[in-house]
Parts: sequence; C-alpha cells; structure tokens
Amino acid sequence: MRRIHMKKKTIVVVGGVAGGMSFANRYRRLNIDDEIIVFEKGPFVSFANCGLPYHISGEIKSRQSLLVVKEELLQKRFNLNVRSNSEVISINPEQKKIQYRSNQEIFEQSYDELVISTGAKPIVPTIEGLDRIPFFTLRNIPDLDKIMLQIKNHHPKHVSILGAGFIGLELAENLKMRGIEVALIEKSSDVLPVLDPEVSIHAKNALIQNGIDVYTNNEIVKIDPNTLYLKSGQEVKTDFLIISIGVAPDTTLLKNIGANLGMKGGIIVDHNYQTSIPHIYAVGDAIIVKNQISNQDTLIPLASPANRQGRQLADILSGLNVYNKGSIGTSIVKVFDMSFASTGLTEKQLTKGTYHVIHLLANDHASYYPGATSIHLKVIFDKMSHQILGAQAFGQKGVDKRIDIISTAIKAKLTITDLQELEFTYAPPYSSAKDIVNLAGYVGQNIILGISQSVQWYDVEMLKNEGYLFIDVRSFIEREGFGYIEGSMHIDIDELYLRYQEIPKDKKLVVYCQSGTRSYNAERFLRAKGFEVYNLDGSYSVYDQISKEIK
Amino acid sequence: MRRIHMKKKTIVVVGGVAGGMSFANRYRRLNIDDEIIVFEKGPFVSFANCGLPYHISGEIKSRQSLLVVKEELLQKRFNLNVRSNSEVISINPEQKKIQYRSNQEIFEQSYDELVISTGAKPIVPTIEGLDRIPFFTLRNIPDLDKIMLQIKNHHPKHVSILGAGFIGLELAENLKMRGIEVALIEKSSDVLPVLDPEVSIHAKNALIQNGIDVYTNNEIVKIDPNTLYLKSGQEVKTDFLIISIGVAPDTTLLKNIGANLGMKGGIIVDHNYQTSIPHIYAVGDAIIVKNQISNQDTLIPLASPANRQGRQLADILSGLNVYNKGSIGTSIVKVFDMSFASTGLTEKQLTKGTYHVIHLLANDHASYYPGATSIHLKVIFDKMSHQILGAQAFGQKGVDKRIDIISTAIKAKLTITDLQELEFTYAPPYSSAKDIVNLAGYVGQNIILGISQSVQWYDVEMLKNEGYLFIDVRSFIEREGFGYIEGSMHIDIDELYLRYQEIPKDKKLVVYCQSGTRSYNAERFLRAKGFEVYNLDGSYSVYDQISKEIK
Repeated sequence: MRRIHMKKKTIVVVGGVAGGMSFANRYRRLNIDDEIIVFEKGPFVSFANCGLPYHISGEIKSRQSLLVVKEELLQKRFNLNVRSNSEVISINPEQKKIQYRSNQEIFEQSYDELVISTGAKPIVPTIEGLDRIPFFTLRNIPDLDKIMLQIKNHHPKHVSILGAGFIGLELAENLKMRGIEVALIEKSSDVLPVLDPEVSIHAKNALIQNGIDVYTNNEIVKIDPNTLYLKSGQEVKTDFLIISIGVAPDTTLLKNIGANLGMKGGIIVDHNYQTSIPHIYAVGDAIIVKNQISNQDTLIPLASPANRQGRQLADILSGLNVYNKGSIGTSIVKVFDMSFASTGLTEKQLTKGTYHVIHLLANDHASYYPGATSIHLKVIFDKMSHQILGAQAFGQKGVDKRIDIISTAIKAKLTITDLQELEFTYAPPYSSAKDIVNLAGYVGQNIILGISQSVQWYDVEMLKNEGYLFIDVRSFIEREGFGYIEGSMHIDIDELYLRYQEIPKDKKLVVYCQSGTRSYNAERFLRAKGFEVYNLDGSYSVYDQISKEIK
Repeated sequence: MRRIHMKKKTIVVVGGVAGGMSFANRYRRLNIDDEIIVFEKGPFVSFANCGLPYHISGEIKSRQSLLVVKEELLQKRFNLNVRSNSEVISINPEQKKIQYRSNQEIFEQSYDELVISTGAKPIVPTIEGLDRIPFFTLRNIPDLDKIMLQIKNHHPKHVSILGAGFIGLELAENLKMRGIEVALIEKSSDVLPVLDPEVSIHAKNALIQNGIDVYTNNEIVKIDPNTLYLKSGQEVKTDFLIISIGVAPDTTLLKNIGANLGMKGGIIVDHNYQTSIPHIYAVGDAIIVKNQISNQDTLIPLASPANRQGRQLADILSGLNVYNKGSIGTSIVKVFDMSFASTGLTEKQLTKGTYHVIHLLANDHASYYPGATSIHLKVIFDKMSHQILGAQAFGQKGVDKRIDIISTAIKAKLTITDLQELEFTYAPPYSSAKDIVNLAGYVGQNIILGISQSVQWYDVEMLKNEGYLFIDVRSFIEREGFGYIEGSMHIDIDELYLRYQEIPKDKKLVVYCQSGTRSYNAERFLRAKGFEVYNLDGSYSVYDQISKEIK
C-alpha cells in the first residue's frame, strides 16, 4: 500500500494515552510526511493509567516505569509534535482551528483532521462536608502524585474509598498492602456491581478476609473532619477519602460546538469514528460504542478498545477499508490472590426467560498435579440461537485464560455447544483433559437437548415454597462440613441406586451436590426412574455464599 | 430427551482410560438400564497417563493420586461392570461375541455394540544389544512401577532417553529433578520435532541449560552393558534406557478380523466412529481422524480428543445428532521453567508459498508490573483465505493462554485480521492493553495490505548472497550485547531520520531490530523514502539461536 498525498496534511490529536497515541503512532507509520500534533493538557502524553494503583503499595516500585514512552522518543522515532501541558480550550470547526492554552497563553493551531481522544474524567458527587476532608480521585500521574504526597506527609492510618468498581478494589488492595486500614463504601448491594451477585459476593468476601471494611448498600451522607457518616447510620473514622464511583466522558469541547452527544454525554460517532461535525473524529473512553452482542449503545472505558479504536481511525484516515465493529467488553480485576473477570453480558443486562445459565466449578489444572486451585465459571447463552452471551469467572489462577477463550468464542459467534469441540493445550501443569470451558459446552448440550433440566440459586426459595423436595446427594461429611439447604433430604449419590425408593413418589425434586456434577448423575437416574427432577445449577458452591448474603 | 429401548442392551468396551471411560460414563447417564462392561487388560481402568512422568521426580508425590477413579466407585455410582486384568483376545463379529483372558482362563462375552478404545502402544525399535541393558517404556502404571522399582533398587546415576518428544522431555526433566544425570537422544535434528526448528531450538537450549545432555541428529547403533554407541561415534555411559520414540495404534484385534485400517495401522472410522464392521466402533489414540485444517488423515494420540470422542460416541449410540468433526491438534509441554505449545499446522506440514508467517516477541503482561516474562509467538496463516493455519509459542508464563485463544480462533475459522478485534481481560498483572495475540492480527493486516513486507530467518543467507544490504536499527548496546547479522550496517532507529541518506540508493534492504517492531518503523520510513525494503520477521530474536544451530 502506498498513498500519495497531494499536500502534506496537519493532523491534530487532542489527548494522548491509549486512544490518542495509538492513533498517532499508527498514522505516522502510514503517512511519513504529514504533520501530527498531539495536545495533552496534563504533563504526560503517554503513561500507564492501569498501573497507577499498584504504585501506591510499591508493587510497582518506580513511578518512572509508569511513563510508557518519553516525549523525546516520540519526537525522534515517530516525528510526532507532542505538546504536553497544553490544554485545547475550543474548536472552530468552520475555520478548522483549535485554541489551546500553554504557559498561561492562548494559541491557535489549524488542522486538516481533528482527533478527539479526551477520555473520561472521574465523577465527583455532591456530599455535605466534602470540603472538610482531603479527597482524591485517581486517573492520571498528577492524581497519583497527590495521593502519594498525602501518604508521605500525613502517614494516614485509615483511608476510605467511595465506589467499589475496578479502581476502588485495586486501591483498597494496594492501600492495605501498604499497611493502611481501608473502608470501602459502595452504593450498590454488591462490590463490582458490573458482575452478577453470586459472583461478586466472592469478591466482597475476599476483601473482608483480607481485612478491608466493606460497606455495601451504603452512601456517605455527611462528612466531618476525619469522620464519614453513612446512610446506614454507621460512622467511619478516616484520614482521607478517594472517590472512585466511575467516570464520565470528557466531551465539553464537542458539546460547546453542538456536536451530537448521547448517553451520559458520550460522543456519537459513525462506523468511521466520525463525529457529527466534518473533519472531527473521536476515539477512546469518550465515545459511545455498540455492544456487539446486544447491539445497544454503551460506554466501555477500557484501555484495550481505546488502543484498537486509535489504530483503526489511523487506518481509516489513511484510506484503508476498516471500520468500528463495536465491543463486547472484557475485563478483569485482581483482588488480593483472587481474580474476577467478565466478558459480554451479565444476567443483570438480560431479560429473564431469554437465556440459559450454567455455573461450573473445576480445577485450573489436573487435580493430581500440585498447586491446583478452583475456578468458578458462569456462562450465559441464548435460549433460541444458543449463542454465548457472556461469561464471568473467579479463582486464584487461570481465570484470565478461560474468559479470554470465551471472549474469543463470543467474538466468533460460537454457540455454547461449540465449546465442546475446542482443543486446548493440555498437560497436567496447565489444564485438565476436559477443561472447564469444554465442560460448559457439555452442560450446554445437555440443557439444550433436555438431558438435564436445571434451576438457579435464585429459584430455590420459590421452589421450596411450591413444595419441591430438595435432595442433597453429597457425602455426610460434606453436608455437615459445608452446610446444606434447609429442609433437604440427604441421600449420598453412592447410595442412590439402593435408596431411591425412600423418596416420596408424589414430590417434584431438586437435586444438588457441591458443584453440580454428582447431582446431574442423580438427576439422570431419578428421571429414568420416573421422577420429575431438576438439577440445582452450580449446586451448593453457588448457593452457599449468596444465600447467606440475601438473608 | 428420553429414549426407550425395546430391550436392555449390552455394551462392551475394550480399553478404559480417556476414550473408554468417557464413553462408559456418558453412555450410562443417557441409558440407565443398559449393561456396560469395560474390559481393561491392565490392572487400572482409569489412571492419569499424562501425570506419569511427574511421579518420577516426586513432583506428584503419591502414586495413588494417579489412579483417577476407583473401580468400586465406577460400580457403585455408574453401575459399570469393570473387568480389569482382563485382556480381550479376539472378536467374533458374526456372533457378536468377544473372547477374553482373565486369571489364565478364557471366557466369552456377547455384545450388542462393541467399543474399541485400545489406544496406542510405545514403539520399541530394533537395536543391536538392546537385551544387554535394562530398558523401559512409559505408558501406564505398571510401566511406571517398573521404572520406580529400577530406580529404587539400583540407584542409577545416569539414565538415557531415546526420543525427544513430549514424553521424552517430561522424562528428562523429572529424572534430572530427581538428581539423575540424563542423556536425551533424538533421531531428528530437533528436539520436539513436531514443532518448527526456530521454536524447538529453544527447547533444546532449555534442556542443555538445565544440564541435560542432548544428542540430536543421532541414533543408538549398538548397546553394550552400560554403554550406548551413537551414530555420531559418541559413547554414552548409562545405567538404563527409556524408549519414548512414539506410539503406534494398538489395533491387532481389528486387524485379525479384517477391519479397514489406515496409516500406521490406525483404525478407519466414519463420522459416527463406526469401523468397517457393523456394531463395532472405535475412539481414542487408535483411530485415524481428519485434521480439520488440512482435511488430511492424521493420528492425534492426545487425551483431550480421546475424551471428546468417547463422549460423542456415547451420544451417537444414544441416538443424538452428533458427529466426529475431526481435530486440529493442540499440545503443550513443560520444559523446566519454560512451556512450549502448538496448535494446528506447522510450516513443516505446509507447502512453501501458500502461507504467511509472523513471529512476535512480547511480554506476558504489562512490562511495568513485576514479574513480566517474554512470550515468543509464531502464527501461520493462509495467503489466499487469510485463515489461521497454526501457531506455536514458548516462554515462561502465559503460553498456554495464547495458544488456547488461537486454537479457539482456528476452530471458529477466524482470519488473521480477526485477531485484531479480540477483546481480552486486561489489567497489568494479566496481559497488556495490546496483547501479543492482537499484535499478530495487526501484523497480519500489515502483511495482507502490503504495508509491511517481511522475509524469514531462513531467507537470510540467500538474500545476503543476492546482495541485499541488512540494516540493524537496534541500539549500539543491543548490537554488541546480543550479536548481529554478519555484514549488516548499523543505524539506530532513533538516528534514522537524520542518517538514512548514508544508505546506498542502489541496494535492496532488509531491516531488523530485536523483535521486529522498530525495524517495521524503519521499513515504513525507508519505503516512503524510495527504498526497496523488507522487514526481517521476528528479527534478531528469531534469527539468533537458529542461525547458530544450522551453521
């Protein structure tokens, strides 16, 4: 591919980091002679925003290592004109010019094409007395510097975090690792509210087990110096506050010139990342994208999509046949020694009755090889098309791998039964001959064909009320050790062939074990013996924690 | 799904472990009342064959843990009639009966359907003097017991392994970890000969670095007590020998009744796993499968496909609409702290000129987060369809994840450019915002569109002879530290804008750096300046080791 410009173009990029720098680097490779100017209002045009929380604990020791690429290198290697500490303050789309402020002075710069990569900014709520406590957000290096300085100068014993999303949890872990006590306050009933509750409850428990005070279903209603007053009536004595309740697209520049904005002020762009205004394009956290599964508008403020969008826009502006296909949203967060990950849609985002759910519990690698740990996997698929809609997983190891595989399967529009056919690297240190992702395919096939009929953890109370008899087919030791569903009858799976006639013939049954495998065997047997029987999906391992939480 | 038999059927399974036991368990779940009889000539019907080498070092401490499911449990929980130490010696397909030997006596058993899951047996070559040394193979628990007993009774200081495939390498590592010196002898020029040489050379180096004596391009021509005489003229003093040169389908039973056999004596089955003889089916290592990419016959003696096949045959014999779609072959092996993995086809299996190759080097996770290690990834895609044909990778961490993702992409028939769109779990401990799999998509797009034109490590000598000028764009420190391609000109990428006019205008160029990224920038720049220029794919990181090997 070789492209000949009639004249040298000037490309102006507003905002560096993921979207802006990906654009600039790619555009340079495709257009050696054009002028590329990157304006960044902060001091750093390229830094590792996802690494910021880890510098607080010292896990990432050097602040310097968070500065991904130095300006000098960008200039020398990519011939980019990088202007940090230069805030673009207005756009004149008719004259194709922008105004920017640098060193207190106002300058102008004309453009042929303008790329908006302004990202998103932390939301700060209105709280009575917020001015009475030091409070911070964490989005960039200056934010980090302020927090580090506060810690250095004031040696806080206790810090509170408002908002238990990804950043909030990473902050909690890293503050705690630094020896600071942490309170985590969240409005929703769950930490990680983007996940489904039977998954996120385990993140909450991991936080609590690691000494974080978690206040869900809560809000800060008033602040006095060193005291937060919560909606629940509780008081939290604290030294300072970090607010991490989410981000909002930073789109003032475009709003001021009447560009089309959508949900939460996000920028509406077409397939070519073009805004409603000619010669102005946008990428990154500030734009609205299509969720590829639901086909609905969404904001996905994550680094990977921003990188891809920046590169694609460079391709588009260089005349390549590329377009914005949207995103499915894949994410992960480390919570001490656990990982929580998600791809695609959750049950929260779906309409009951349109999908099936599978919960699985298996080891990350062969159980007989040392160091095996549990993976909990939830997969959701469409009742009609059988396409995979989403998956969530948690565990100590191998969580990222399984979600990445399923994310790939979703992107490729595979069905749940296609997961049976996938062939993974198998040796005892890495996985099992039947990996948990294969098992999801097997269970999916059983559900589709009616070989197994499952009910979910949230159906349990209703079914008990309707008179269903629950049968626990675990061993006596497991039942006593882990606890059980109240009112359930106990028949060890290995005694079922002998004892099934003890089960009342007139009862509808729900069988359960610890993970759902033995109860599936029991289900098959009891159905063959003429019972109406359902398998409790995920069984006691799913029911256990969440049932205690909702009580 | 409910299926009503007119009469109770008798299903006879010959051979347990992966294929046979998967079949039996699944068939039982679908058919509660049929009789299922599993004959196993050895003492154990279900054991972890992939775990055997790890018991030698004590990495897997307990022999007991290698016995996956006990017979008693199979009887109680699945109502399986398991007959271990019972060797089936003949089949009478007309009368639908088999003969078997148990406790020195011969018995008969009739069947309605017969499932052959006899697997494969280790190949033992003819070597002069093989009777003069204790030698072993490793395929099952009795084999392992013999090796363990030999070690216990004779305290060997040195063991030799013939055959450097997966088992050979696992044996070498585990014997070494036990404190025994190891010689590894391989006929091919590479260890792990199923991989391409620029990948497997790193396995060889890992073995050597860990103290294994590796003899490639070699054979044992004669054996005296405690001495192996090699083709190379070298002599290896050793205490005993383990032979791991591969396996052959164990298909005598079917051969004797004239069933259709194919390559290497493997069983020919149809889409329903049916052999050429009515009511006789086969699964596992003994059958020939279609490679789903090349559509050619192949033998894939791996646990995962065997498990899947067993389950699918149970579905088929239960009337479900399932069929054998073939396999692509995905595998991994641990070599001390390194992992080597592969999926799909290698260059060795392909016809030059029909495909493109990409070599990449990137970190398993964000470089600024502690503990990042390198992943080397090779991806091969079709020149016309752009479909991914295969991938190989090695490194310390995250190798299994990347190959599993690409294996999923191959199964879903994704093209190389589709890899750009995949959305992975990203946080600094897990991956990079642009994961190496995404990068493969980016590079693939560049190659397809001609944005980058690459040459391979095996082209270097030819291109040098044809007068191409090689330009090394790394830093001076890298060039001196890592070495360089002889005769190459050195211009640091960061000086290229200033110094490119030093390059002779009449020369065709090949640019290289350490991994191929900076040289790609140089390629784009130099092409824009009018040079005919190619990028050395994978650059010095690929060229380095293999060029020393082939000299």
